[in-house]
Amino acid sequence: MEIYLDNAATTKPSNEALEEYVRVSKMYYGNPSALHKMGLEAEKIIEKARGQTAASLQCDAKEVIFTSGGTESDNLAIIGAVRAAKHRGKHIITSKIEHHAVLHTCAYLEQNGYSVSYIDALPNGEVDLDQLKQAVRPDTVLISLMALNNETGTVQPVSELKSIAPHALIHSDCVQAYGKIPLSPADLQVDMMSLSGHKIHAVKGVGVLYVRKGVHIVPISYGGDQEGIRSGTMNTAGIAAFGVQAHKICGSEEESMRTLKARRDYFAQRLLEEIPDAVINGQKAVHILNVGFENVRGEVLLHALENAGIYVSTGSACTSKSTKISHVLQAMHVKPSVAQGSIRISLSLDTTTEQIDRAVLEIKKQTDFLKKFKRR
Amino acid sequence: MEIYLDNAATTKPSNEALEEYVRVSKMYYGNPSALHKMGLEAEKIIEKARGQTAASLQCDAKEVIFTSGGTESDNLAIIGAVRAAKHRGKHIITSKIEHHAVLHTCAYLEQNGYSVSYIDALPNGEVDLDQLKQAVRPDTVLISLMALNNETGTVQPVSELKSIAPHALIHSDCVQAYGKIPLSPADLQVDMMSLSGHKIHAVKGVGVLYVRKGVHIVPISYGGDQEGIRSGTMNTAGIAAFGVQAHKICGSEEESMRTLKARRDYFAQRLLEEIPDAVINGQKAVHILNVGFENVRGEVLLHALENAGIYVSTGSACTSKSTKISHVLQAMHVKPSVAQGSIRISLSLDTTTEQIDRAVLEIKKQTDFLKKFKRR
Repeated sequence: MEIYLDNAATTKPSNEALEEYVRVSKMYYGNPSALHKMGLEAEKIIEKARGQTAASLQCDAKEVIFTSGGTESDNLAIIGAVRAAKHRGKHIITSKIEHHAVLHTCAYLEQNGYSVSYIDALPNGEVDLDQLKQAVRPDTVLISLMALNNETGTVQPVSELKSIAPHALIHSDCVQAYGKIPLSPADLQVDMMSLSGHKIHAVKGVGVLYVRKGVHIVPISYGGDQEGIRSGTMNTAGIAAFGVQAHKICGSEEESMRTLKARRDYFAQRLLEEIPDAVINGQKAVHILNVGFENVRGEVLLHALENAGIYVSTGSACTSKSTKISHVLQAMHVKPSVAQGSIRISLSLDTTTEQIDRAVLEIKKQTDFLKKFKRR
Repeated sequence: MEIYLDNAATTKPSNEALEEYVRVSKMYYGNPSALHKMGLEAEKIIEKARGQTAASLQCDAKEVIFTSGGTESDNLAIIGAVRAAKHRGKHIITSKIEHHAVLHTCAYLEQNGYSVSYIDALPNGEVDLDQLKQAVRPDTVLISLMALNNETGTVQPVSELKSIAPHALIHSDCVQAYGKIPLSPADLQVDMMSLSGHKIHAVKGVGVLYVRKGVHIVPISYGGDQEGIRSGTMNTAGIAAFGVQAHKICGSEEESMRTLKARRDYFAQRLLEEIPDAVINGQKAVHILNVGFENVRGEVLLHALENAGIYVSTGSACTSKSTKISHVLQAMHVKPSVAQGSIRISLSLDTTTEQIDRAVLEIKKQTDFLKKFKRR
């Protein structure tokens, strides 16, 4: 039996989401922008999913924009917001532990007349709020901070940003957090939130950008204006699948969080019992366990586990093919020898105790074996 | 029995494409960027689809970039190319009959220091090549011309552009043309081509940008660089569905073109037999029949036909909710009274002669009825 422990990279679509995808593709394939009945029916499917998503965020349906994924949502939020606010200032604050969809977007803006402050992380995995406070300027127009880090799982203090910089817009990449912790724009006090379908057992190729009513952002691509700020024929079936999962998330976040956290803590506890010198990177995590082993290369351990049918990752999947040390662990000042030996284990509600027990024993076995080959 | 004649807006996904979507979603849901076996398997699925797409275009697989759809492909081609070439010039040529994904992208660039020449169409629906030749300047960096117009179906003289402006990059929005006419970048002599999955009986939310080897374009969104120039977790299942349809297209375009053209011509012939004063807008069309009726409003006719289970459109679906006269028919100088009474009938290989016969009689019946209410 294979054990999938890479849910932070992507999740298996639920049967319900896939069935909805197929049902909509077969019956409601009309273009949702078409004037005739088949268009209106497709539009209704989308509006239902929009309502389900809004309910899960406790926001208004009009504040939900469907996109092609988390990366597009992050780009639209950041570029769209700072371009709309360019007369007010050109300074952005973000953290060094953001996803590359945020970091690379900020780097692009730096090349185009914007100034960006990148805030360090503390050793516990949280962004350094004191440093962030110091970075705030009168011309700061945007702060972008993820809600839950995708490599360490550490929940970030997003809700404190608005009082730190009331004059700036607040964006949060909630791609990893959505469905794992209670998450509403009101509680987080954010103006924009990015979500992704394939991290919540919906399908790949669908994301959401929440934009608070009254917040002005400009488009970053141009066409038929189907979603107002976002152009392109709407992916009715993918959006419907997102709605199915959003509906499941709605109201169940507290319980999901408790369950995931208990399993993650159990995993960590069992691991430290078996491998006392393992280093857990980051705290306040829910479904992600980032763990380092001295004298073992993370990539080698990943492949050793793969042979036993256990799938984990090193760092984020999006940049896994790079052999550099994770930028997140670097920002947390994790010792390079530990960072190089780190793997990310990410759970879902489908992960069982039996799977965890088996995975721990396999990690123990493989790290014992690999440590023998350490360079002297 | 319902008769779907709005295939230019979107098509019904084929059973094979949907089955592949489901198979891949269930078995190969791993993140294609993941280092482990499940990642590699997903990557193989994508590379197979890339090969199938390349085969259908007779190009190299490395020249195929997967995107979220035709709109993103058009934006990436146009903005990406002119930004990369900004030191060489800032003049763009396009036509007045392009899709809004091209027109609105050009309008955005006009607001940002670029100059754009919009070429008229001739009454037959073709772009005015003489006017286009006059518009070429030494600083022209890009010409964007669609291969087959989405409202009239008229095939455009794309292959002549390269010799008219050898110093410019040539982009063609081939979203409507792909699968309907033989189409290779070599034959068309283009540097970039945009394709869309939902127009070829694949699924919504997947597109392709062909970029000729050696042509330099820059990204328009930023993140994990999964597709090099394009960021975002790759939509494995959607891409696989695209591959299934690309494989069907490969080598069958000549036959599809003949079949579609014969049915379209039959439709036109039957329509003129029944309604002699109907006006066919545009020539050299394959699967699209744009037809105008004096003293009938297109939108009213659309709803009358809808009640009989027949689905057509007025203009392009992406802007169908606007009540303005089609910008395409305007550019062709179609008489406003005819343009307002125009509907677009778009066929697929699934459209039968029986459906055409029934649709013609219904159009006859409804236009006869509606003409009685003409304003005097």
